[in-house]
This record gives sequence, C-alpha cells and structure tokens, in this order.
Amino acid sequence: MEAKEKLFPGLDGVVAAETKISFLDTVQSEIVIQGYDLIKLSQSKDYLDIVHLLLEERLPESTEKIGMEKILKSEYDIPAEILEIFKHLPESTHPMDGLRTGISALAGYDNNLDERSLPVNKNRSYQLLGKVPNVVANSYRIIQKMEPIRPNKSLSYSANFFYMITGREPSPLEEKIFDRSLVLYSEHEMPNSTFTARVIASTQSDLYGALTGAVASLKGNLHGGANEAVMYMLNEADSVSKFEQMLETKLFKKEKIMGFGHRVYMKKMDPRALMMKEALKELCDIKEDHLLFEMCEAGERIMEREKGIYPNLDYYAAPVYWMLGIPIPLYTPIFFSARTVGLCAHVIEQHANNRLFRPRVHYTGERRVLN
Amino acid sequence: MEAKEKLFPGLDGVVAAETKISFLDTVQSEIVIQGYDLIKLSQSKDYLDIVHLLLEERLPESTEKIGMEKILKSEYDIPAEILEIFKHLPESTHPMDGLRTGISALAGYDNNLDERSLPVNKNRSYQLLGKVPNVVANSYRIIQKMEPIRPNKSLSYSANFFYMITGREPSPLEEKIFDRSLVLYSEHEMPNSTFTARVIASTQSDLYGALTGAVASLKGNLHGGANEAVMYMLNEADSVSKFEQMLETKLFKKEKIMGFGHRVYMKKMDPRALMMKEALKELCDIKEDHLLFEMCEAGERIMEREKGIYPNLDYYAAPVYWMLGIPIPLYTPIFFSARTVGLCAHVIEQHANNRLFRPRVHYTGERRVLN
Repeated sequence: MEAKEKLFPGLDGVVAAETKISFLDTVQSEIVIQGYDLIKLSQSKDYLDIVHLLLEERLPESTEKIGMEKILKSEYDIPAEILEIFKHLPESTHPMDGLRTGISALAGYDNNLDERSLPVNKNRSYQLLGKVPNVVANSYRIIQKMEPIRPNKSLSYSANFFYMITGREPSPLEEKIFDRSLVLYSEHEMPNSTFTARVIASTQSDLYGALTGAVASLKGNLHGGANEAVMYMLNEADSVSKFEQMLETKLFKKEKIMGFGHRVYMKKMDPRALMMKEALKELCDIKEDHLLFEMCEAGERIMEREKGIYPNLDYYAAPVYWMLGIPIPLYTPIFFSARTVGLCAHVIEQHANNRLFRPRVHYTGERRVLN
Repeated sequence: MEAKEKLFPGLDGVVAAETKISFLDTVQSEIVIQGYDLIKLSQSKDYLDIVHLLLEERLPESTEKIGMEKILKSEYDIPAEILEIFKHLPESTHPMDGLRTGISALAGYDNNLDERSLPVNKNRSYQLLGKVPNVVANSYRIIQKMEPIRPNKSLSYSANFFYMITGREPSPLEEKIFDRSLVLYSEHEMPNSTFTARVIASTQSDLYGALTGAVASLKGNLHGGANEAVMYMLNEADSVSKFEQMLETKLFKKEKIMGFGHRVYMKKMDPRALMMKEALKELCDIKEDHLLFEMCEAGERIMEREKGIYPNLDYYAAPVYWMLGIPIPLYTPIFFSARTVGLCAHVIEQHANNRLFRPRVHYTGERRVLN
C-alpha cells in the first residue's frame, strides 16, 4: 500500500460520486430527491410524479403525466420469447434470479444498445419502467407453474402492477398504499445496488447490464432481501410475546436482525419506515386485525432499548405487503421494480459524465518466488 | 458534503479492500498473484495451475492437478434447459448478454444457494469453472443459429475450450498460446469487474449474481470490450500505413483509442501485453504473415511518441485471438471465462470477511420546496 493510500472498508464515508439526483441529508434528517423532501413528496405525489421528477428533473404538469403514462402503457408487453425463457427456468429458481435473467435477456431486443446518449437512455428507461412489473409478475408466476398474466391497461400504473402480482385489482386504499410504497422505494442516494449500477455503467456498459447487476445486489439479505427476511421472522413468531422472545434470543446470540439500522441513519428511525408504519396501521384498522402492528411495535421497542437502533423501510414495508396479500418472495422484486427509476436516473447521470470506477487494494498476502 | 468527506472520482487511488489474492506492485513493476509474479507463472505454469493457486492458495502437486481436472471435466455439461433458453434469445443478442443470461439462469440449478461457507463457495467455483466455457461457446453458437457443440473430455481444459469456440482442436502451439492468454487474463487485482463482483457479494448475494454483474461490467468498452474494439480497428485499417493514419486521425480528434493505457500502469507497457506480443510473433512466424505484428508495432510507436502511453493486454490479445481463428465477438467472453477463477476467489474472500459496500455522494443539485 502506498503511503498516501488509506483503506476504507466498505467505502464507509467515501464520497464516490457527485450527483444531482438525491442525497441523505443526515443533518436536516431529510431524504432529498431532486431537491425535494421524499416524505413530503410521498404525502401528495404518486409514483408517476416521481418517475417524471427523476427522469425529467422536475414534477410533471398534469398533461405531461398523462402523456408519460400513455408511453409507459405502450411498453407494458414483453416479448413472448421472454415468457418462454421463464418456462425453461427450473422451479427452484429464486424470484430475484428469474427477474435478473429476464432483464438480462431483454437486452437482445434493444436494437440501439451501443447508444448511450441522454435521449436514448431516457427512452430506454421508460421502456424498462413499462416492462419491469410484467417481468417481475410473470417470471414469478411462470416459475411457479402458474399461467402468465397480461397487463390491464385500464388500471393505473401502480394498480396494474398490484393486479399482476396478486391477480386481483386493489381497493382504492390498497392502491394508495402500494403506490406510496413504490414512491418510498423509488430512490435513496447510493445504496449498494445503485452503486453497483453506476460501477457497471462506468465501463460504458449499457442500462440492461447495470440493472442486471443491481438485481443481483438487491437480492442479498444485507440489502433488498431484508424485507422478505423480516416477514419470515414475523410469520415464524406469530405473536407479540414470541416475537419479543425471538428478538431477544437473536440479540443474545449476536445474530444480525434484519429490518433495523442503516449505514447512514445511525440514531433515528428511517423516515420512510414511519410512513409505512402509518400505512400498516390503516390496513390493520380496516381489517380489524392489529397483530402485525403490535408485533412490529414491540420489536421496535426492544431494538431501541437493547441496541439503540431503529427500523428501516424494510421493517414496515414487509408487514404492509403481507396485509396487501402480496406473496413474500415478491417483496424484493417489488423493491427493485420501484427502484428501477432511480437506477435509470443514476446510469443516465453516470454515462453523461463518466469516470471509470477502479479502486485499489491493500495486499495482505506474502511474496513468493517460483522455484 | 460533510467536512471530513472528500470526493474520489472513479475511486482513483482509494483502497477499497484488503486482499490476499493479488495486487499490482507498481514500484517493482510486478503483477503479484498469490505472492508470485504473474509473468513468471505464465512462463512455466498453465491455466489449471493458476486455478488451483487462486482457489487453494498454493500451486498444485501433479496428482492434485489431475484430481482437479477430473472435477472440472465432470462439470463440463450444462442443463439442456439452458441450451433451450439460448434458442429463445433473439439473434441480435450480444454474446456478452447471452453469456450473462446463461450464468444468471444457472443459479436456479444450485440447490444450496443460500450457503456461502468457504467449502460450498469453493465447490461452486469449480462447478462454474467447468461450465463457463460451455456457456460461452453454446450461447454464442445457438444465438448465431449454429448447432450446439458438446465438450470433448479427452482434451485438456484449454484445448477443449478452444475446440468449443472454434469447432476444431488446436495445434500444440495454439493450445499453449491460448492457455497462456487464459493465465494472463486470470486475475488482476481490482479492475471494475472484480470490484463489481465484490460490491454485489457484499450484500451477501451469491456467486452467480456476482458473476452476472461482472459480465455486465466487462462488456463495457472501457474494460473487457476493449479487446474486440482493437480487432475491429486493425481489420478496418488492414495495412500498416492505414493503421498509422487511423490512429493519427483519432488522436487529432481526441477520440479514445482502445488497447492503450491503464489506470494503474501509467508509464510503461503492461507486462502481460509483452507476453502476448511474443505469442503474436510466434503465430505470425508460423503462418509467415507478419502484417498484424507490424501494424501493432507501428501503433505502439505512434502512441508512445504522441501520448506517452503503452499497450495493455487487450491490444496484443486481440490479434493473437485473430491469428488463432477465434470469432471477434468471443474475445470478451473468453476474457470473462479466464477471469472467472479470479472473480470466484474475490467473492469467496469477500464473503469470508464481509463489509457492505455503501459509499456516499456529494449532492450538487438545488434544494426545492413543494408547493
């Protein structure tokens, strides 16, 4: 290691890029998305507003939003060959792996793949935003030996996505909450998956490759996979006291507990989690079943008391998705689908002002001489 | 940006990990692989020696090498369903995208995917090393509407790989040179693709995901794609004087010229390039056709004179692969295949001592308030 070089494990605290897209303002406790507070956005804007904001750098006029929705709907269908590919994946394929394979295969249909100019990248982003919910729903369904489902263009973007993954149209409340979860998952500065996408894009590789890598990253249970892990814990416990016991045992064994803490938010609750906690309350009220809400609150208290750490978005998104009747293996694919727009914005930004990512290492091995 | 945070564009000079696998010793001008000088290794060891060295951390005894080769051969076949998937990819699919889709799909056949312990990861690495040449060859062949080809287990690992991509068995000289190219491409510290794989693995995502991301990274023409770009330039020029003219025009227009320079080697020739230059000379001598060698030398002189930069491995690997009769679109897939062992070693090391990669950003956008 040369003298001037310093090791940054996990790149903790290293500023790896300049961006106009978003950042976590830890001083003012704000998730800044294109200049706006994400929480405020989530209270009055829907997912398509955020799509426009992230790709066009401003909120849409209502006619622009209608035009954009039309474009997205025209991109809902995916090639029949992609559905055939899903039929050849073994039933043991993880939904994130099916999704990854589907996005990777889609690249072959882009006849302009070498082009990375802003208009082409943007157009490609809208195409992908139209198609990803279909890939999520049908890769899962077909691998599970269910019939493929066709998009319903009479529904809103979020309602159609909900319909394709559950097989039923959402109620207005369900649609609102599901849409809000997409808003909250849409963009979040430089988590591992976004970083992965930018690292890949920095070789001048294309958007499909960057997104494929991001799916792979998001699958890990230290990242997107956490929302599924939370739900399996909650289901296994199935009562407040057993959940408390489970967490205490895990703490005693020093096991990692998913859904809590975040590299950047150190000492307070992820504000997005609070929004999903409110949504969970609404859903529990409607269904007159407060078990999950009470379990989650109990878990929150234990973790605060024992570790001084707080829920992140995954902790409350998981029970919300459960109450919405969404199959657990789709939680992380939904996270990816919602994040697609943020990933596209980052790849576009990387391509527009590129510098190849190529760090160094500190060699800790010995030196050897060949006999 | 907080005061203590400094922007590192492209992470230039940032030490992102400790490793015992390899490093570029720029002081002693040595590519250190598990302690040894890669160039010395390439002069007396073959690719399977390097596989053993990278996965077992020492060179093999001859019986160990035979045992390892047997294991690799037992893994040569890929599921028939994967070949079916390739049939459904459109003919316009880029070979790296076919490879990426194939590796992604293979994950579904691993019934132990959540397990990341050292022995399981190592076993998985050998499985992948057995299968990747098959995926490279048959994804390409099938997308090109050619008949799939079966591995020939009577040949050495490298000779079989050569056979599968060209359809013919190599001569002893061709086998030696092709094997040497695999050795030289096997591992190289922390280039973008290796970094991508480690970033993905750091979420506790699996080896298939990490490799899928690495394919996506390597596809970019600022990285692995460079070897193909070099060959297209050489073929377009087709004479020494036209190649000189082409390079001068590109320099005048300030276009990036592939095959020269490297983030880490600043002021001398990549020692791997020198090995491939020697191999090119040998092949040209045998075929009594020195055109490519002369073109490459002329290009080398111009770039040294005009820019003070020197050939990297891709610059001389490209004409070597051309003289070996390998289709240009397979140059980058071959690079990936050779690098698979290095990537596996890095993922294993990352999983064994993990820290999630999660850098920060410097926000350069404005702040806005929602109306």
